[in-house]
Amino acid sequence: MALNYKMIAYVLGRIFLVEAALLLLPLATAVIYGENTVAVFLLTIALLTAVGLLLGIRTPKDTTIFARDGLVVAALAWVLMSLFGALPFRLSGEIPHMVDAFFEVVSGFTTTGSSILTDIEAMSRGLLMWRSFTHWVGGVGVLVFAMAVLPLGDGRGMHLMRAEVPGVTVGKMSSKLRDSARINYAIYLGLTVAEIVLLLLGGMPLYDTLIHTFGSAGTGGFSHLAASVGAYDNVYYELVIGVFMLLFGVNFNLYYLVLLGRAREAVRSEEMRVYFGVVAVAVAAIAVNITSLYGSAWQALRHAFFQVASIITTTGFATQNFDLWPNFSRTVLVMLMFFGACTGSTGGGLKIARIVILFKASIRDLQKALHPRAVTSVRFEGKALDTKTLNSVHVYLTLYILLFAGSVLLLSLEHFDLVTTFTAVTACLNNIGPGLAMVGPTGNFAHFSHLGKLLLSFDMLAGRLELFPMLVLFAPPAWRRKRRAAAAR
Amino acid sequence: MALNYKMIAYVLGRIFLVEAALLLLPLATAVIYGENTVAVFLLTIALLTAVGLLLGIRTPKDTTIFARDGLVVAALAWVLMSLFGALPFRLSGEIPHMVDAFFEVVSGFTTTGSSILTDIEAMSRGLLMWRSFTHWVGGVGVLVFAMAVLPLGDGRGMHLMRAEVPGVTVGKMSSKLRDSARINYAIYLGLTVAEIVLLLLGGMPLYDTLIHTFGSAGTGGFSHLAASVGAYDNVYYELVIGVFMLLFGVNFNLYYLVLLGRAREAVRSEEMRVYFGVVAVAVAAIAVNITSLYGSAWQALRHAFFQVASIITTTGFATQNFDLWPNFSRTVLVMLMFFGACTGSTGGGLKIARIVILFKASIRDLQKALHPRAVTSVRFEGKALDTKTLNSVHVYLTLYILLFAGSVLLLSLEHFDLVTTFTAVTACLNNIGPGLAMVGPTGNFAHFSHLGKLLLSFDMLAGRLELFPMLVLFAPPAWRRKRRAAAAR
Repeated sequence: MALNYKMIAYVLGRIFLVEAALLLLPLATAVIYGENTVAVFLLTIALLTAVGLLLGIRTPKDTTIFARDGLVVAALAWVLMSLFGALPFRLSGEIPHMVDAFFEVVSGFTTTGSSILTDIEAMSRGLLMWRSFTHWVGGVGVLVFAMAVLPLGDGRGMHLMRAEVPGVTVGKMSSKLRDSARINYAIYLGLTVAEIVLLLLGGMPLYDTLIHTFGSAGTGGFSHLAASVGAYDNVYYELVIGVFMLLFGVNFNLYYLVLLGRAREAVRSEEMRVYFGVVAVAVAAIAVNITSLYGSAWQALRHAFFQVASIITTTGFATQNFDLWPNFSRTVLVMLMFFGACTGSTGGGLKIARIVILFKASIRDLQKALHPRAVTSVRFEGKALDTKTLNSVHVYLTLYILLFAGSVLLLSLEHFDLVTTFTAVTACLNNIGPGLAMVGPTGNFAHFSHLGKLLLSFDMLAGRLELFPMLVLFAPPAWRRKRRAAAAR
Repeated sequence: MALNYKMIAYVLGRIFLVEAALLLLPLATAVIYGENTVAVFLLTIALLTAVGLLLGIRTPKDTTIFARDGLVVAALAWVLMSLFGALPFRLSGEIPHMVDAFFEVVSGFTTTGSSILTDIEAMSRGLLMWRSFTHWVGGVGVLVFAMAVLPLGDGRGMHLMRAEVPGVTVGKMSSKLRDSARINYAIYLGLTVAEIVLLLLGGMPLYDTLIHTFGSAGTGGFSHLAASVGAYDNVYYELVIGVFMLLFGVNFNLYYLVLLGRAREAVRSEEMRVYFGVVAVAVAAIAVNITSLYGSAWQALRHAFFQVASIITTTGFATQNFDLWPNFSRTVLVMLMFFGACTGSTGGGLKIARIVILFKASIRDLQKALHPRAVTSVRFEGKALDTKTLNSVHVYLTLYILLFAGSVLLLSLEHFDLVTTFTAVTACLNNIGPGLAMVGPTGNFAHFSHLGKLLLSFDMLAGRLELFPMLVLFAPPAWRRKRRAAAAR
């Protein structure tokens, strides 16, 4: 079977129309502040509308979407949205090279937050608003967004969402996908509004509030200030943003359970407990480790809390240059980068669920080594996991490591030190934002070559889409074998 | 069922007797060079003999060895042999602290080659001979050695060997284990003698020849020269040692096939082909990368070949300070550290077979994502792998990563830079020897605290015994659960 190209084009067209609509927010910002980027935004919107209408005007007869169509749509949608989204930066001249603009927007949509900008505060406000808004859009996913607002039958959407929704699926997915997409967006919107209100109440200007709420909601981390959240030096802001980063890292299904009045079930979630447990332990460990640096346990706790929340949720906001912290704290932070947040949240990384499952499977096998005949199973969230789920988690880990190692190897061809190379890939593949050394909180990604930036863009996309779509898009052997197999039938 | 303590004590007693016999070689060396360590060696031999006779004089009635007995024996045997083996260093005062002496001997037996010595050439010759000889003994394994020379029935030995023989077992293990242990040792001895003869023919003194042959045969890497093999600056020596390191990294079963006149089968080995393929690619890539450093392609190739052979086989001999090479070359070397050599060889690391299986399983799952209904299997060495084997490889990888991450985290509490911390664990867990930065080819492990050295000793043992025995020895929950389960029966 060939891919359903017509349907792929149709979905992409619809997504471009959505993107055109999304650009109205930065356009409005540019108008309000009387910036000269208005024309650039209008041009991009016009282009997206034209292409979107061309591709998406007629519903194809065959609207069937199979697994691989879903993977291809997801990969193409994210790459093309990033390309179009990069146009305003390039056309305005504020980012002179297209590769840099592409990197920045991929970093936005994938909620990474890595930046090639060397002077953020010199950018115009409309573009900075767009840059941060991509975090908010990318947080829950563009396809999920499209599902929520577009006329697509339910059954057809499943393979689209599957390619984009992060984490391990334990148990069955809801069949009412469109409803579930809408509920997800409603919760997302609700939390977003709550954060905006709380920041406004604390006296933060509206513009700043939007920027930092988009950054924390999508767990992205772009700020319009060079010193990130640290620029305010305000404990209230840090507390609100810190808590909300953590909240956006929780599986959204748990909020839904709370809304349904089943808060007890929500509280029992194994993944959430481990998540908050890891946060608590990491905050305590780092706070002790950096107390001598900040002179007081309270200041140490404050900075440890914000940085742990920022890193484990893969947001990447900074209040301190944690690259100057002692080695132990830096190592803990790098490890949290791999952990990531919960399944079904906006956070990236390996996800707590996978870590827990991998850990339990290992313990199980250690026990099996002791008594080869004992029958044991790996349990997660109260259920015994089947071999298929276990295998999929193991394969995910392997693919992840292969991609990680390959990226580090390629990036090491650029002449930066090992810590920069290693943490640049870590930060991009896990959608964190900052790494250590040259890509630390006070550094940026401008120094890499264009090829290096494209490689890291690929890693950001692969990390956000959980590897499969991007790997399938760039895996010709897999394609060929498929066609041959199809021809043989 | 409780452990068979009597049988465990019996096997340990026998192993101590073997170690007493092994100490005759360094004793002879000390006598020949008229060194004052003679008494120290005699004392250790007497102690080992006494304890060995005490434990091993009477064969227990019940000689059954189950899986967990095997794991416990393996772990205890390696720890206790290292403790006894450390005595001559400590008693002679040449290594003043017991923890340092223990680290050095663990590094020897596990064929790691990491050293805490800051002035190797100041050591006496008998002790240096013992230090290198532990590599040779540890290469094929002390239990395998014990199996080859001790009166243990065949069936009983299986669980002993299984705990010690490296790599994945594809297909059935030979039932005639004792024969197979003897054949392995015969091949090992044959290759060792061949290397000794070739080095002697090149004019290397006998003492130096033995030291460097023991180091390459066990893929250990201890030298009696501060500049390692580089001190000779001799292309012939480098070629012989380089080739032999690679040969000791090949699965010994292939040599057996060649001896049986089935060379064709041997040449078809998938693991061996990948192994030599990786070596070829790595040598070429590094040679290109360092040519500008050495002025000529020939010199670059020479150093790239030796260093790649040394690192992929996890030996760790050095001819150049590769820590000064460009980042790309250093990254390639660090990755080769994880690769390791072939199953059933003396090399450490993850082993080529595991890497190949993990890679193939990932490709299979990528294809499955494209056509969910296709029936595919992962094939290795021409056979389809069953789920159990695949799972065991995946679990191995997970345990490996958990141990690696945990070790890096703990070691980061010592105040060294990230590259030192990261590569120290890499070098020890994979039984390589040198890492980068402070533990690079010209550095050593003396700076770590006693706790740090014990942690790294644990990693070396876990790496050499392929994780399970050491983890089981230090996993009280697993023990407790077992006992409870046994009590419930």
